Amino acid sequence: MNSRHVQMLRWQAGAKAKRQRDELALEEPLEVRIETKPISVTMRTPGHDDELAAGFLAAEGLIQCREQVARIQPYARNERGNVVNVFLAPGVKVDFARLTRHVFASSSCGLCGKATIEAVHQQFKPVKAKLTVAAKTLLTLPQRLLAAQKTFARTGGLHAAAIFTADGELIVLREDVGRHNAVDKVLGYGLLNDLLPLDRYILVVSGRASFEIMQKALAGRIPVVASVSAPSSLAVEFARDSGQTLIGFLRGDRMNVYAGPKRVRL
Amino acid sequence: MNSRHVQMLRWQAGAKAKRQRDELALEEPLEVRIETKPISVTMRTPGHDDELAAGFLAAEGLIQCREQVARIQPYARNERGNVVNVFLAPGVKVDFARLTRHVFASSSCGLCGKATIEAVHQQFKPVKAKLTVAAKTLLTLPQRLLAAQKTFARTGGLHAAAIFTADGELIVLREDVGRHNAVDKVLGYGLLNDLLPLDRYILVVSGRASFEIMQKALAGRIPVVASVSAPSSLAVEFARDSGQTLIGFLRGDRMNVYAGPKRVRL
Repeated sequence: MNSRHVQMLRWQAGAKAKRQRDELALEEPLEVRIETKPISVTMRTPGHDDELAAGFLAAEGLIQCREQVARIQPYARNERGNVVNVFLAPGVKVDFARLTRHVFASSSCGLCGKATIEAVHQQFKPVKAKLTVAAKTLLTLPQRLLAAQKTFARTGGLHAAAIFTADGELIVLREDVGRHNAVDKVLGYGLLNDLLPLDRYILVVSGRASFEIMQKALAGRIPVVASVSAPSSLAVEFARDSGQTLIGFLRGDRMNVYAGPKRVRL
Repeated sequence: MNSRHVQMLRWQAGAKAKRQRDELALEEPLEVRIETKPISVTMRTPGHDDELAAGFLAAEGLIQCREQVARIQPYARNERGNVVNVFLAPGVKVDFARLTRHVFASSSCGLCGKATIEAVHQQFKPVKAKLTVAAKTLLTLPQRLLAAQKTFARTGGLHAAAIFTADGELIVLREDVGRHNAVDKVLGYGLLNDLLPLDRYILVVSGRASFEIMQKALAGRIPVVASVSAPSSLAVEFARDSGQTLIGFLRGDRMNVYAGPKRVRL
């Protein structure tokens, strides 16, 4: 259940306004807890909350593999299911201090993107995966992404993130009102299904490629990220410093390769 | 300076790859401080940082009008200008505890959108503005928005937010890599130019209408919000409970009115 029907008034110039039913992407808060301790709250589209929680914690560097998680379950006292509890395997310790730290960092010249990238690299080393992908395969991915976006097709209101093999096979696609949540869900799917590190896969996102998307991809060890839209300056800088391949404006029969062109077989 | 040039490899099926220059939307961290005390860090597009800071604080309910602000200036020790300091007028006190509170709230049935809306209403009452706008005027706004998006036209990588009068006159447009930042900048422009409450204006956003956008509009007392794209379920619920008019899919010669249809003259 990731959408809801509402009544609205549809109007077109020259015609009479009509009351109609419309389908909207669901947006609800989700609180993630570790051993009942509240960690974060985000606005998300319900569904795959266990993956969202696992992916978020992996992107924050708090957990690294499936064995560290005993179980993920809705919090008992929340009827609507908007609280999810991550229970860790015996002996697994989480560094909660990391959550108070922001990845944003200052250098001697002040707060800046460069220092922020360096701070991320203290936790997640650059990727060295030798994966390559044919440009012609990349061109097919946006269409495959769109075909799998079931709720987007009905609501127009969801972002999507998906991982594909270098042969263009879809491994998993997740939708969410938040771009970063869709990526967290994909990461969480990878973690819970023991696919980490995701160094044999390509991440495709329906929205723009920003710093945060690249950081999450790096946390999952994803070497290639492709967006149908524009990257930001910091996403490109991050990808170049992190050994990642970044493709933007992947549309129709063309693409722009902003970082790591060696992985693209033209 | 809200964009930067980079070299990239452009490839089109059937042609040889070409090295080309491309223009990207800038993304850099910004830390907002009050009286040198760090309040928040966000990834934003540089430019109008004073408005971003003022708008963010207004949306959080920490400041309400221009007189409360003595001055906003870059932090002296940050050469790159990624820290901005808000100095308050003598006698103005800010409730810092509010920043630790999230607007997300639980009711007896648990964390949910409804309880979150009620929590926002404890701080920002629903709007009652009698403003109306002709549907035909609304139809002209997306084109006016696009025409004013100078950096988007070159980079494809920025969201825009703008306020218009009911006659379709553009008051201010701001662009940012973050949807919420673009709205904060518009709110901040309103606050710093003594236009608050913005109850005579229409907010138009280039992206989707989510809960957060509606919450910020309410903080600025904006009665009408129009998006060229889809609203989320919670945005519609929020608008209906807050006395706001919410228009989605404002494209070509049509629109969907999801909340507050009385303000739209069809």
